[in-house]
Amino acid sequence: MAEIWNTQPTVDRLLSEAKSGAERLVQAGLIPKLTVVRVGNHPASRVYVQKKVQMCQDLGFGSDHLQFEESISESELLATIIGLNNDKTVHGILVQLPLPDHVNAEKILNAIDPDKDVDGFHPVNVGRLSIGQDGLFPCTPMGVMELIRDAEPQLSGKHAVIVGRSNIVGKPMAQLLLQANCTVSILHSRTQNPQQLARQADIVVAAVGRPGLIDADWLKPGALVADVGINELTDADQVARFTAPDSKKRSAFERNGRVLYGDVNFDSAMQVAGKVTPVPGGVGPLTIAHLMVNCIRAAERSRHE
Amino acid sequence: MAEIWNTQPTVDRLLSEAKSGAERLVQAGLIPKLTVVRVGNHPASRVYVQKKVQMCQDLGFGSDHLQFEESISESELLATIIGLNNDKTVHGILVQLPLPDHVNAEKILNAIDPDKDVDGFHPVNVGRLSIGQDGLFPCTPMGVMELIRDAEPQLSGKHAVIVGRSNIVGKPMAQLLLQANCTVSILHSRTQNPQQLARQADIVVAAVGRPGLIDADWLKPGALVADVGINELTDADQVARFTAPDSKKRSAFERNGRVLYGDVNFDSAMQVAGKVTPVPGGVGPLTIAHLMVNCIRAAERSRHE
Repeated sequence: MAEIWNTQPTVDRLLSEAKSGAERLVQAGLIPKLTVVRVGNHPASRVYVQKKVQMCQDLGFGSDHLQFEESISESELLATIIGLNNDKTVHGILVQLPLPDHVNAEKILNAIDPDKDVDGFHPVNVGRLSIGQDGLFPCTPMGVMELIRDAEPQLSGKHAVIVGRSNIVGKPMAQLLLQANCTVSILHSRTQNPQQLARQADIVVAAVGRPGLIDADWLKPGALVADVGINELTDADQVARFTAPDSKKRSAFERNGRVLYGDVNFDSAMQVAGKVTPVPGGVGPLTIAHLMVNCIRAAERSRHE
Repeated sequence: MAEIWNTQPTVDRLLSEAKSGAERLVQAGLIPKLTVVRVGNHPASRVYVQKKVQMCQDLGFGSDHLQFEESISESELLATIIGLNNDKTVHGILVQLPLPDHVNAEKILNAIDPDKDVDGFHPVNVGRLSIGQDGLFPCTPMGVMELIRDAEPQLSGKHAVIVGRSNIVGKPMAQLLLQANCTVSILHSRTQNPQQLARQADIVVAAVGRPGLIDADWLKPGALVADVGINELTDADQVARFTAPDSKKRSAFERNGRVLYGDVNFDSAMQVAGKVTPVPGGVGPLTIAHLMVNCIRAAERSRHE
């Protein structure tokens, strides 16, 4: 029987590193600043942005929130990014997705100065990660990597299986685990008999966007399981399949008609795994904590240029 | 019993694609040109460069060979690269490695305009490959990918094992096979029990630089085996271990005191595999053929800028 993988100690460590980094920089006369760019009025985006801005304040560094109308043109948005690139008081630029359809998101993200790209999505940073050069790397896989290191200091030679191959999680996660000397397998929707390969893994990272896909049958006894999936369940049958009748999740669903659920069938996985992160409250806080670390790194890097 | 995996049809196809691409461009008034930059007088480098320049001529497009003294300074070399970046008649820039110790190779390679980087080593191209954007990608893995596609048109869901995690072969090979919807496992020197994982693979790419490492025990019956390793054997015991007494390789060794040998134990692998590429004469010609394709792609891309 697994234990619930508590991510809070790793989150606390990352936030405390960001805080002391901010203090050092402020003492040296440099106030780190994150600028978040948001377009339109997507309600979830607003909540995310407010959370990020608030956390910068809590950690003692600067933040700005630029809010644009849905109707902003691509060229206006590009001009904004270029202005932020040239603004020496701004160290991190984050464009909150999604962007409106009339804006080419790739073009906007590629316009961000890679050394201010705290999301780590710019091709230059993707390339640097792969090659093993210094850079800014995506927050979710970086946060999960810290979590894994805290649980298993001896990663060399461990077999890590990543389920999902997104640019934001799966692929950078593979690069990070490979750098840590893990043997890495990447599974996805086209993989035949994925259970068989996943059952050989010491570490499983689930980032595929399919609720409850990974159950006990996918896991080696004692495996570490990081669940990056956040799926909204609204179907009562599906909820009944994944949750016990007397569970908090079930009663949350009965109250709200919806409930968040990961890519891991939690109750089933807990029968076999060593540790499983919960959803929500597992990997999510690691992501935002690592965004803070990235802001400090970007500010530190700006001193050496 | 395997067949020897003949790479010549794929090589011929790539060269013919490059040739007809060059013809199209020349007819449209654009003469594709590759400029090779070489520093010092490393004899093997000279042979490689001559081969590349000759092949451009054979295919009907331009090439230049800039040769510098070993004593050239880093800043002079950088200035040369920047000059080539700005020269609209040059579409491909290739800096032949190795560079002298007093020159920072990473700095030089990163200075090449990514859109002229026909080696595909620039971080921007590495990033584009990972994200799935258009770009110029490394010649050896690109060539091997064409070979694999020619042998196995149905790659989706196949399990590919890559042995080795270099920036030049292993990592880009993993990206390409993943894009082709393969399940991908990356093995390396720290992998525990690599045979067990390799034996599950439909496709094995060996790029680890350890002569004869991969033998029958690593292979599933019928597996496709691409051997990217080129190791020089000079030790008689090692040669005796890998070659039959009456083989051509053995007599070549007896004549020259050295012989080239791949990462695959060829005779052993042939007992189990479906196809195995020979060394030399297997993957090597694919690499240079794909360099020609990259030159044409770079020239084509320059028209759309």
